[in-house]
Amino acid sequence: VEPASNNPWLYLRLAASIEEMIGRRLLRPGDRIPSVRRFSMEQRVSVPTALHAYAILETRGLIAARPRSGFYVSARSADSLSEPDPAVSLLKARALSPADPFESLTDNMARDLVPFGVALPSPALLPVGKLTRTMASIGRRLGPAAGDYDFAPGCLALRREVARRAAAAGCSLAAEDLIVTLGGTEAINLALRCTCEPGDTVVIESPTFFGIVRQLREMRLKALPIPVDSRTGICLDTLDRATRRTRVAACVLVPNFHNPIGFVMPDARKRELVRLLGGRGIPLIEDDVYGELQHEGPRPRCAKAFDPDGSVILCGSYSKTLSPGYRVGFLAAGRWHERALGLKKIQTLAGPTLPSLAVAEFLRNGGYDRHLRSFREACRRQVEETRAAICRYFPEGTRISRPSGGHLLWCELPGNVDSLELFREAAAAGISIAPGPVFSSDGGFRNFVRISCGHPWSSRLDQSLAVLGRLARKQARIPGAEQRREHPLRLHSAAGR
Amino acid sequence: VEPASNNPWLYLRLAASIEEMIGRRLLRPGDRIPSVRRFSMEQRVSVPTALHAYAILETRGLIAARPRSGFYVSARSADSLSEPDPAVSLLKARALSPADPFESLTDNMARDLVPFGVALPSPALLPVGKLTRTMASIGRRLGPAAGDYDFAPGCLALRREVARRAAAAGCSLAAEDLIVTLGGTEAINLALRCTCEPGDTVVIESPTFFGIVRQLREMRLKALPIPVDSRTGICLDTLDRATRRTRVAACVLVPNFHNPIGFVMPDARKRELVRLLGGRGIPLIEDDVYGELQHEGPRPRCAKAFDPDGSVILCGSYSKTLSPGYRVGFLAAGRWHERALGLKKIQTLAGPTLPSLAVAEFLRNGGYDRHLRSFREACRRQVEETRAAICRYFPEGTRISRPSGGHLLWCELPGNVDSLELFREAAAAGISIAPGPVFSSDGGFRNFVRISCGHPWSSRLDQSLAVLGRLARKQARIPGAEQRREHPLRLHSAAGR
Repeated sequence: VEPASNNPWLYLRLAASIEEMIGRRLLRPGDRIPSVRRFSMEQRVSVPTALHAYAILETRGLIAARPRSGFYVSARSADSLSEPDPAVSLLKARALSPADPFESLTDNMARDLVPFGVALPSPALLPVGKLTRTMASIGRRLGPAAGDYDFAPGCLALRREVARRAAAAGCSLAAEDLIVTLGGTEAINLALRCTCEPGDTVVIESPTFFGIVRQLREMRLKALPIPVDSRTGICLDTLDRATRRTRVAACVLVPNFHNPIGFVMPDARKRELVRLLGGRGIPLIEDDVYGELQHEGPRPRCAKAFDPDGSVILCGSYSKTLSPGYRVGFLAAGRWHERALGLKKIQTLAGPTLPSLAVAEFLRNGGYDRHLRSFREACRRQVEETRAAICRYFPEGTRISRPSGGHLLWCELPGNVDSLELFREAAAAGISIAPGPVFSSDGGFRNFVRISCGHPWSSRLDQSLAVLGRLARKQARIPGAEQRREHPLRLHSAAGR
Repeated sequence: VEPASNNPWLYLRLAASIEEMIGRRLLRPGDRIPSVRRFSMEQRVSVPTALHAYAILETRGLIAARPRSGFYVSARSADSLSEPDPAVSLLKARALSPADPFESLTDNMARDLVPFGVALPSPALLPVGKLTRTMASIGRRLGPAAGDYDFAPGCLALRREVARRAAAAGCSLAAEDLIVTLGGTEAINLALRCTCEPGDTVVIESPTFFGIVRQLREMRLKALPIPVDSRTGICLDTLDRATRRTRVAACVLVPNFHNPIGFVMPDARKRELVRLLGGRGIPLIEDDVYGELQHEGPRPRCAKAFDPDGSVILCGSYSKTLSPGYRVGFLAAGRWHERALGLKKIQTLAGPTLPSLAVAEFLRNGGYDRHLRSFREACRRQVEETRAAICRYFPEGTRISRPSGGHLLWCELPGNVDSLELFREAAAAGISIAPGPVFSSDGGFRNFVRISCGHPWSSRLDQSLAVLGRLARKQARIPGAEQRREHPLRLHSAAGR
C-alpha cells in the first residue's frame, strides 16, 4: 500500500486513505461507506474522481457495491487482508499493563510464582549439572586457551554438530553455513537485521511468540499478522493475498511446535509456503527452537528442508532443551550469510568460549540425545496432565490446543473473560500465566491464555489450575462454578492425532 | 555540509563540490585552484556565480586568496576541518587488501604468527585457570540454577562490582545504571544504536581502533575523523569547528590509553570535551577498555567522571584484562539507559550466566586486583623492551608513541614506507603487525604500524622486530640497513613523562 500522502494521483490518494481506514479498522467489514456524491463533496473532489477511487477499491476487493444500497467494506478483506496500522498496533501492544509482557513474566519468575507463564522447562529437567561438569573439564584441559576469543562464526566443533543434527530435520547444512549465536534471540535479531530496514513490513503469525513482536517493535518494523489454523499453521491463502498487495520484507514463523499454539505445519504446506514466499522474493525466517521436542516419532522437518536457494533463514537454540543460561543458539542465514556474519561481528564479535565447547561436546558424546529422550517424554506427560486439569477446572466453552510437541498450551476462554485481568488476579493468587494479547501485535486474543507445562506435574500445579479455573469462571459469570468440576470441552485436535 | 547535488542554489552547489574535493583530498593544502574566470568557463556558469562560490569557501576558511596569485586551498582546513566523503572513505577502507583488517589479523592469530598484530595480551598473562576454577565451583554450588537465564540488565553481583570500581575512575555509578554486555563490542554497538540512525555522522579519532570503523561501516554511519595529538588526544578546536558546521549524532572516543596511540587525555581536556559536546547535545561514547592498565600510579579518570547529566555513555570490558572468551563487558548508557536495555533484550536477551558470575566473584574476592598489579607491570616492561628494540632496529626517522598504560605502540615509519606492503611481507616472514590504514576511515596512516606488546619479552620477539626493521629499511631505501643497528629516534613523549 502506498502511503496516502505520497501518491501523485488524487484518485489513488483517496483510495489509499480509505484503504488505510479499513486497515486500521476505523471502517469494519460490513460498514457502509459514503455515497460517491457525498464522498466527492466531503473531499472537495469531482464526482468522477471519487468514482475512480471507489472503482480502484472495488477492483482490489476491498469494497463491494450492493444494488440500490451503496458501497460496503468487504468482509474478506477486512478480516485478513488489510494491513494493520503498525503504529496503532504497536502502541496498543506497548500500552498493555504491565507495560512489557516480558518484564511482567520474568518478574513473575523472580517472585517464584507457579510457573505457567514463561515458556521455560524446569531447571530440574535439564542436564545443567552434566553440562557444568563438561565445561569445567574442558576448561581444565585447555588451560589458558579456555579464555581465548571464539570469534564469529564461532566454535567449529559446535557448528559441525548442529549441521549433523540438521539432517534429521531434512536440512542439508555444512558447518560453513552456520553462525553460533547468543541463543535464538540473537539468531532472529540478526536474521531481521539482514533482511529489513526500519519501517519495513514483516509478516508474523497471529498469534505469535511475543519475543518476535518485541523485536519488531524495537527495530521499528511493521507487523502484518496473518491468522493461523490451530492445526496446520499460517493461512497460505491469506498470506498469498497479503503479500500480493503489500511489500513485505520478511516473514517470521514458528512452523514446528508453534509458540503459543503448538501445531506443526504439515510438510506439504511448508513446501508450499517456501515456494510462495520464494516466488515473491520474501525471505522466510524460521524459528525452530522447539523443533526437537516432538512427543513421539521422528522430529518434524524444517521449512528450510524445502528451500532450494537459501531463501529460508533457520534460527535454532539449545535454550529450551539444554540450558537458557549457556546462551547457545545458531543461525543458518542462507543467502544472507555474509551480511549476518558482518552484523554478528559488530554486535557481539564472539560467543562465550567454554559454554559453546561444553554444548558441542554434549551433542557429540550422545549426552544430548539421551537427555532428549527423557525430556520429550516429560513434556508429553506434563502437557497431558495439564490438559486434563484444565478440562476439570476451566469454564465451559474453554477450547484448548493439542500440541504434538513442546510444552505449551493455548487456551481460548469464554468470550467475556479478560485474560489481562485474569493475569493480574492470578499473580495476586501466586500464579503466573501468559495473557493472550502479548501474543498479538494489536492487542487481540483478549480471552486467550498460554499455559506452559514445563514443570513436572504436582499437586501444587493441579491446585493452581483449580484456582485459575475459579478465577476464569468468575469472570465468565458461570454460576456455581465451584460445584461443577467436570464438563465436556471442544478440543482442537492436531492433524492426524 | 550539504551534499553537492541537493542544494537548490547553484553557487552553493559549486562551493560544496569544491569542498568535497578538499575533503576527499583531491585538492590538498597549498594546491592552487582555478581562477574565477577559468572556473566559470569550466563549469559553464557566470563569473559572478563562480565568484560567489569562491567567496563562500573563503568565508569558511577553506580557501584563501594570495595577492596576484589566485586562490589556494588553506592548510588548516584541509588538514582537519573538512568532512571526508564517507562513501569514498568507507569504500577505501573496504578495499584494503586483505579486505577486512580484522579478518587478516585474526587469521594471523590462527596461523600462530609472531603476535604484534592483534591487541590481545598473551593468555599466559591472564588468570584464566583461576577463572575457570571459580566458574566450576560456582556451577557446582548453584546446581540446576547455573543454567538459568541471566536476563538483561544482567548479573546484579557483577554490576555492583563494576559500579564500585567505577568510583576509582571518578564515576558515580550504581548497579542500576549498568547493563552487562557481551564484551566491549556489544557495549559500543548498543551505544551507537541508541544514538544514531543509518546515514548519521559520527565523530571518531584519527587514528582510531578499527573495531569502531567496522561498527560504523556495518551500521551505515558516516565517519567524521578528527585528528588527535599524540599526547593529549582529540583536537578540541577542530572538534569545536567541525561540530559547529556538521550535524553529528555521536562521538566515539578512546580517551584512556588510546588504541592505537596510547595517550591519556588530561582531565582538564576531558572536562572541556564533555562540556563542548554536551553544549551541542552530542552524546559521547567513551570506550574505556584499557582504562585500568596504567603502568604506574592511580588509574586515569573517565570522561564520564565529568558528565553532569548522563550525556556520556561509558563502555567497558574485561576482555583485555581477564579473558576475551568470557565475553564480559558493561555499558553505562546514561540518558539512553532504557533504550539500550530494550535493544540489549532483542539483540541477546541475556548474557552467559556462569562466566558473568565467575568474573563478579573474581572482582569481589580481590583476585582481579592482585592480577592487575602484576599484569600492569608486565605491560609496562613489555612496552619498554619493545620500544627499545624498535629503536635498535627500525629505520632512521621512525617515530614512536610513549604510552603510559596498555600494551600498544604506534609507530610512524619514514614517509615512503607502505605499511600494507610491510604487513604482507611481515606475514610472509611469520610476523603479524597491524598496518596504519586500518586505524583510519579513509585509508590514511599509510606509513604507520601498530605494534602490540601483549606477550612477555623474548628473543623470538626481539628477532622478529629485527626482521621487521630490515623490511622497513628496505622499503625506506636506506642503504646498508643491516649494518646500522643503532640510531637516535625522535620520540613522542607522553604528557609529564
